[in-house]
Amino acid sequence: MPDPDQALLASLLGPAGPMQRRALAKTITLLESTRADHRLRADELLNAVLPHTGRALRLGISGVPGVGKSTFIEALGLHLIGRGHRVAVLAVDPSSSVSGGSILGDKTRMERLSSDERAFIRPSPAGRTLGGVAEKTREAMLVCEAAGHDVVIVETVGVGQSETAVANMTDMFVLLQLPNAGDDLQAIKKGVMELADLVVINKADLDPDAATRARAQITSALRFLGPHAAAPAQVLQLSALKGSGLDEFWAAVSGFNERQRTSGRLAARRRAQDEAWMWDRIEAGLRQRFKQHPAVRDALPAITDDVLSGRLAASVAARRLLDLMD
Amino acid sequence: MPDPDQALLASLLGPAGPMQRRALAKTITLLESTRADHRLRADELLNAVLPHTGRALRLGISGVPGVGKSTFIEALGLHLIGRGHRVAVLAVDPSSSVSGGSILGDKTRMERLSSDERAFIRPSPAGRTLGGVAEKTREAMLVCEAAGHDVVIVETVGVGQSETAVANMTDMFVLLQLPNAGDDLQAIKKGVMELADLVVINKADLDPDAATRARAQITSALRFLGPHAAAPAQVLQLSALKGSGLDEFWAAVSGFNERQRTSGRLAARRRAQDEAWMWDRIEAGLRQRFKQHPAVRDALPAITDDVLSGRLAASVAARRLLDLMD
Repeated sequence: MPDPDQALLASLLGPAGPMQRRALAKTITLLESTRADHRLRADELLNAVLPHTGRALRLGISGVPGVGKSTFIEALGLHLIGRGHRVAVLAVDPSSSVSGGSILGDKTRMERLSSDERAFIRPSPAGRTLGGVAEKTREAMLVCEAAGHDVVIVETVGVGQSETAVANMTDMFVLLQLPNAGDDLQAIKKGVMELADLVVINKADLDPDAATRARAQITSALRFLGPHAAAPAQVLQLSALKGSGLDEFWAAVSGFNERQRTSGRLAARRRAQDEAWMWDRIEAGLRQRFKQHPAVRDALPAITDDVLSGRLAASVAARRLLDLMD
Repeated sequence: MPDPDQALLASLLGPAGPMQRRALAKTITLLESTRADHRLRADELLNAVLPHTGRALRLGISGVPGVGKSTFIEALGLHLIGRGHRVAVLAVDPSSSVSGGSILGDKTRMERLSSDERAFIRPSPAGRTLGGVAEKTREAMLVCEAAGHDVVIVETVGVGQSETAVANMTDMFVLLQLPNAGDDLQAIKKGVMELADLVVINKADLDPDAATRARAQITSALRFLGPHAAAPAQVLQLSALKGSGLDEFWAAVSGFNERQRTSGRLAARRRAQDEAWMWDRIEAGLRQRFKQHPAVRDALPAITDDVLSGRLAASVAARRLLDLMD
């Protein structure tokens, strides 16, 4: 490892403070870089910090636009900092390369939390694929843990499969909902509700009756579809704006985490996540090599067209394309 | 194409009868074969029949063991044959290579339907991967369509991701449920309910009150999680054993299919399925080549172990393994 990276590593693993914050930002910039030499250095740093990771609580948070994610995360972050935690907030937003970084990119969002030196906030990395964006966030999460952040919050918007990616890198996936259970709940993307380890009805103060109805409806739906059918996900109400319900929320998170830890499910979940991430990246790499193979690149458009217009069976097309690689 | 395969093709596309049935069985055996020369011949046959496919209604049916799938499919099949349809019943059961063919494998199942020459029933192909098993069933489906079967039913048991595979090869995915909505509904696998285009509560005659409650509960849950949030999947009650409700069921299937067809969603669904199947098979092929690469094969166990024990970051491991292929 080159000397500057040794110094970077020492700052990362050293005491909290401005020096560590700069090291954190610099390391994450390195691992977000597309330059091959940066990537090699980032990989070495990543392996060096790895023994210092794993002690944080990794919390995924999602919800449709307007549900109040920023307000909730800021309130939660300040609440946790007040109780002695060090909080990192990261984001997965595959649209950020198009929009110029919508999520957490706006400096005026989470103003109080971002100005507190016990918090570290980083917007979503840019990237062309969700897998790539998510991978960089996952690596940033490990670096934040090594730097001593004991709660890492990974935020995502409801864009395609980004919720699945975040659920697959965290210990607990929290879905924020609005109290009006009718039409707005239909905005829940296919498959998202059942990722939830905990559902939070935010803005419950606006319409307490609607919030109570939503809670009952979601509780009933989760009995059918949650990942823990035997012990369905809890549903809470709170108001992030008024700061009410945060104690109950954190008690639910801590309780879930404690049960996961003592039962061995946390360790199993993380091992399964590690293996799945490795294969996800391998498959992304194989796909990229395939598409860049000259013979495949030449033939792919016409063969795809033949499949889409019903002239060639999909399985036959796949075999022909694979044969081109030999 | 060799002469025997020309004859096979002529019989396949020829008039219904014992000769066509034998050609159908022979062609499917060919495409289920693992011999490379068989595979080549099967691919040629597949492409030759392709222009004659696409006119059937492709119906996926799933449900937990005990829900009465066989009884339902037999009753439905006989009902449809009575109305002039030609029915094919296929299956996706990735466990069949282990269990020796549980699904549709037992000749005493669907005895009446299987002895009717207007029906064609084929058990699940054996195979080591779900993708492989599903692919062969999908190819068999095309061959059945070319032979003039205008309703193709693809059955699956609730094993892992097999429901997703079946939903991805059919025009409509039907989920059978039991009337006791309590504990048994919790047996629904993660993600299966929301694949459903139609939910059927079978054995509704056993406990009409429970069936009505289940219908209400499932209808409510589907509002949250169905693929058609704006027009949630219908929920029907019937009794396959007594033959009641089959008319209503077929009316619901036909109505759904007609709406899909006229709106263009059917064509879009099939095109998306074709493209997804092509990529699914490409990725399976790439994965297989990767695992069989000598350097990868040697290094994979130790690297996987390093990832699982936290000594190596998942993304770094992926890059190292990919580099071994160069």
